[in-house]
This record gives sequence, structure tokens and C-alpha cells, in this order.
Amino acid sequence: MIGWDIGGANIKVSAIKLKGNEIDSIRIIIEHFPIWKKPEKLPKILCEIKNRIYSKKPESMSLTMTGELSDVFRNKKEGVNYILDSASQAFNNYDYSVLNIRSKLISVDEAKANPIEVAGANWVATGWLISKKIRNCVVIDIGSTSTSIIPIMKGKIAALGKTDFEKLIVGELVYTGVLRTNVAAIVNEVPIKGAKVGISSEFFSQSGDIHLILGNISYEDYLTETPDNRGKNLINATKRLARVICADLEDLKKSEIIRIARYIYEKQIDQIMTGLEKVYSRLDPNNKREIPVITTGIGKKFLAKKAAKQLNIKKIVDINKIIDNFTFMATPAVGVAIMQAHKLLGRNVIWKH
Amino acid sequence: MIGWDIGGANIKVSAIKLKGNEIDSIRIIIEHFPIWKKPEKLPKILCEIKNRIYSKKPESMSLTMTGELSDVFRNKKEGVNYILDSASQAFNNYDYSVLNIRSKLISVDEAKANPIEVAGANWVATGWLISKKIRNCVVIDIGSTSTSIIPIMKGKIAALGKTDFEKLIVGELVYTGVLRTNVAAIVNEVPIKGAKVGISSEFFSQSGDIHLILGNISYEDYLTETPDNRGKNLINATKRLARVICADLEDLKKSEIIRIARYIYEKQIDQIMTGLEKVYSRLDPNNKREIPVITTGIGKKFLAKKAAKQLNIKKIVDINKIIDNFTFMATPAVGVAIMQAHKLLGRNVIWKH
Repeated sequence: MIGWDIGGANIKVSAIKLKGNEIDSIRIIIEHFPIWKKPEKLPKILCEIKNRIYSKKPESMSLTMTGELSDVFRNKKEGVNYILDSASQAFNNYDYSVLNIRSKLISVDEAKANPIEVAGANWVATGWLISKKIRNCVVIDIGSTSTSIIPIMKGKIAALGKTDFEKLIVGELVYTGVLRTNVAAIVNEVPIKGAKVGISSEFFSQSGDIHLILGNISYEDYLTETPDNRGKNLINATKRLARVICADLEDLKKSEIIRIARYIYEKQIDQIMTGLEKVYSRLDPNNKREIPVITTGIGKKFLAKKAAKQLNIKKIVDINKIIDNFTFMATPAVGVAIMQAHKLLGRNVIWKH
Repeated sequence: MIGWDIGGANIKVSAIKLKGNEIDSIRIIIEHFPIWKKPEKLPKILCEIKNRIYSKKPESMSLTMTGELSDVFRNKKEGVNYILDSASQAFNNYDYSVLNIRSKLISVDEAKANPIEVAGANWVATGWLISKKIRNCVVIDIGSTSTSIIPIMKGKIAALGKTDFEKLIVGELVYTGVLRTNVAAIVNEVPIKGAKVGISSEFFSQSGDIHLILGNISYEDYLTETPDNRGKNLINATKRLARVICADLEDLKKSEIIRIARYIYEKQIDQIMTGLEKVYSRLDPNNKREIPVITTGIGKKFLAKKAAKQLNIKKIVDINKIIDNFTFMATPAVGVAIMQAHKLLGRNVIWKH
């Protein structure tokens, strides 16, 4: 089983081996590919990944996407069609299913007939996967670029928003992430020498710099380009953050940089909390906070968990308590593959963790 | 007299003809040149502009800059040196002066010895120019990318900040402008159907789209690239703004788009007001608001004037009441040329308007 999640900045793939209806192993590939830079390379890169992940024809493939939101496409329809055409070309017309926002795996032709139904559907795979284990919960999946908050009630996805637009409105999508978020989109000002100071609006530094400076991620986790195309080490991250207030490194003490980074980190937690609060206010109007949060994605520990704690959620469960170690890095890709297996087998896929 | 203002996104040049010590004519050239994209082209483009603006050797040239802040340079020193080397090469070693933050025109060698003193000094030219006409005032110069707020007291620049970093702290630099400011750096949320909704943190839309949608600027004023490299017409600007909330055009009514654009516009005025308030609180601690504001730059009418009004400044003067028609589009380039003339003549340059 191969599951594809074609995002705007990363392509994630899972290869799942089954023994009967039980998962034997899960492999993950993550390839940084900013689709807006060279969209014409998409078929080639998909083909390369395909050749790396399977030597013989896989039993079955399924695909989900978010990359169609990129402004390299005029609208979502154009993006969906381009991604599907690229995949079909790369997979040599080998058949695959496409996930839609109603938790159905449909054919490529059906997907093309209803592009808006498959646009930005990757959160459905995540929600579906976790709904198989936990009947009532709220999933927080924090990736490099954005955060999905997915309510699950009575074993079913209970999201109010279907499209990204609707999800932004109800708080189920928060456009903040671990690596690629422009610092200027997180804060409008930062604390310097006891005062709040306005910042540059350029794309000088991103959330990856903040989390590197604060030790939330390491060099190896920083899987994206940097705004200035310079290194992913502490010194370069610090320079980038200093530039946000038009400063060179010499203008700021280390403690001042740390204070600024912490402030931005807190604001990012606030952003996630705002979305989470909207979702809980609907599911849990009496503020009991007893519905557990499941955290996943590369920001699960230092962003999702913190936001849930700040909202006084009583039970916070790491996805690793539910499924294999690296799934958190590509939950939708794993989810969509298991969905496909489930559909083909006609019964529940089971796994140990 | 030729005055150069080499910014990060635009190169602006003024050519001033004198009769005795009186200005006979002012010509302006504005060339969009994002320095971070192809820094190696800078000497060539400067040379081309030079050939367009003067056929015979000009009497004298002077230069100021802000482009060194671009993250294509490792730090300001590297940026200053690169810009000066490019200019020297383009001008065929024809001599020119460089403006420093202490209102002095110095030699290229002196500038290279003190790069931090010439970095981001273009606001000094603007302040100096206006100080020759109005002894006490606060200048607001709003360009494509940023806003300078320059206090002038007793005929002298009375800025507290010298570097961009210091100016951000005291409110004399506000990083918001008419064209290039990322919408996600102006607001964190926008109003939709009566609620505040979080937005995408990508660079999907910029202030130029907002002002085009609201009719504050026209197609011809939109002198910069667009985030998606698509057109500068209303339909494309609207699409870009819709994408900020992950929406296609079909998802939103025209009235909803206008409401969102107005909200962003108001927040931009607030940003400028915050800086202006900091400056006035120092100059005018009793809140008399009698020190006049002089507005210049392409945002003088719909941003600077509005912010000053909102702060109850009693007298707001358009720069066109002070100097020739197009100066507002390149005030530092005009200022630095007149400074140079003033220095060479050893007496005040005068002009009618």
C-alpha cells in the first residue's frame, strides 16, 4: 500500500506492508518540493520518489493533496487537475484512488469531475486514521506550514469546515507551522529593551529559525529552505531573526534574541489556542475540557501540547501512543494508505504500536 | 545635479537643473529593481539609468541608499560596499558623494570606512529638504515598502533614531507601505460574515492589491511585481486577496472582499498612527498636536494624511505645497541632489512651487 500526500512545500509518502489485515511495517519518505518554484518538475519528482519507495508494482495506491492552494495555480480546480495529471504521468497510468473531503476514496476521473471535493483533503486521512482508535477526541496536526484541528465524535470525523476557507472560519485550520511561517505573519511587534517594537514586514525570518534558536528543533528537522538561502545553523537563524528588526548581530545581546524568539513562540501557541478554543467551544460548550487532544505532526510536542495545556485540556495524547513511531511526520500519507487497505480488504486494518 | 536613492525594491533618480542658485527643473526616474533577485545586475542597471538621465557629464552626483538591508547581503556593511562598488563601476569612476546619517555628504572612501553611517540614510535627505522650508514639523514619507517619520525642530532634523533598528524602536520607521507589504504582515485576521477569521501566512497578497481594490491607486501606480506574478488588474488583485483566506473568487461576494480590504487598510493606518503617536508623544508631550505634519511619498494622501487626521494633528500639509509636483515620488533622490547643490554653491538653493 502506498499513500501519497502532495503538499505545497513537501511531498510525503508512506509505504505500508500488511500481513493479512495487520500492519507489518510502515516506511515514510518526505521530499521537500516547493511546488510554486518549479511546478513543471512535479511529474519527474513523483516518478523519482515512486522508484525509491517501491521496486515492484504496489498492491494499491491512494493520494491526497493540499498543494493546489499554491498561487502558481490560478484556482484550486487548476491545481487539482495539474497534480492529478502529474501523478498519473509519474505513476505510468498505474491506477490510484483520490481522497475526498467526505472520507471517500474515489477514482481519478471522479476527482477531476469534482476538484473542490479533493482539494485540501489530507486532514481527512489524519482524522479517519485516529477515529479508528479513539472515538471522541480532537486531533491537532502541526506541520511545517499549517495546523489542522480535527474533531472526532462517536468514531467519525465531526469537522464543521470542509474546505480550507470554511476551516479557517471555524478554527479547524490555523495557518501557522513549525518551519515555514513568516515571523512577520506571527507577530506585528516584538519586545526590545522593555518596549514593544514594530518589525519589518519582509520575509526575513521564519518559524524554523525561532524553533532552532529555542532548541525545539535541530538542524536535521529544519527540512525547508531558509528565507535568505543561508544555513540552518544557530548563527544564521539568529542573523535572520535580527534582520526582522533591521538589526545586525552586533546590535543585540544573546539574551535579547532569546527573549524575542520566546515571544514569537508564545504568539504561535496563542494562534493555535485560538483555533482550538473555537473548536472546543462548539464540542464542549460547558468548558469541561474532558474530550482528549491527540497531538501529531512535527510540532506535536512544543506547539500542539502546549496549546492544549494552555486551554486546560485534561488529557493530551501523543500519536505515538496510537501508531508507529514516524507516522507523526506524515500522518495523512499513512492515513490515506490505511484507508485504501481498509477499503480493499473490506474490514478493519489493525496495528500494534 | 543628479541624486540617486538606491532602495531594495526601487532605484530612484532625480536630475535637477539650476539657474544660479534657483531650481529650474526637476526630472525623476523610478526603476523597479528588486535587488535581492539579481544583485549582480546592479552595475548594469545603474549604467543604463545613468545613460537615460544625462547625456553629458553632470555637474555633480550624490547618492543615498536603503538597499543594503536586503538579505541578499550578509550584513549592512557588505550591502553598503556592494552598492558603492556597483555605483562606482556604473558611473565610470565619475566622482559622487554619499549621504550619511549625520546629514553630511561624504566621499565614497569615507562611506566605505563607515558603512553603518550611510546605511538606510535616505530619510535624512527627505528631512533635510523639508527642513529648508518648514522649521518645525513631522514629515511622513510613505513609499512602496516602508514609512519614515522624520521630526524637524528649529530647522534641523530631530530624529532620535539613526539606524533603521533604532528608528523602529522609537517609531520613526514603520515597516508598512503602499505596494509591497505582505497582507499577512499587516493583519492576523480579517472579518468574514461577522466573525474574525485567521488568515494564511503565505505571501499571497500585498498592500498594492488592497489599494487597487479600494481605488486608492490605479494600475499605473502599481509599480512592483505581484506575489503570484499575475496581473495588476482588479480581478487578479481580488483573487490574490481571496487566496489569503484560502478562498477562490466564487467563495466570496464583492461586498465581502471590499470589507476585508477596508479592514486591512484601516490596520495599515493604525500601524502608521502607532509610529506617529510615539514621535508626537516625545515632541508634544502635552498633546497639543500643533506641530504640523508634512505628507510625502506615494501613500501621502490615503495613508499619511489619514493617520495624521486620526491622531488629531491640526495642520497637515501636502509636500506639493512645498516643492514641485513629482518630488513626492522620490523625495530622498531630490533631497540628496539639492543637498549636493547647496554644498557646492555654499549657499541656499531656492525653488518656487
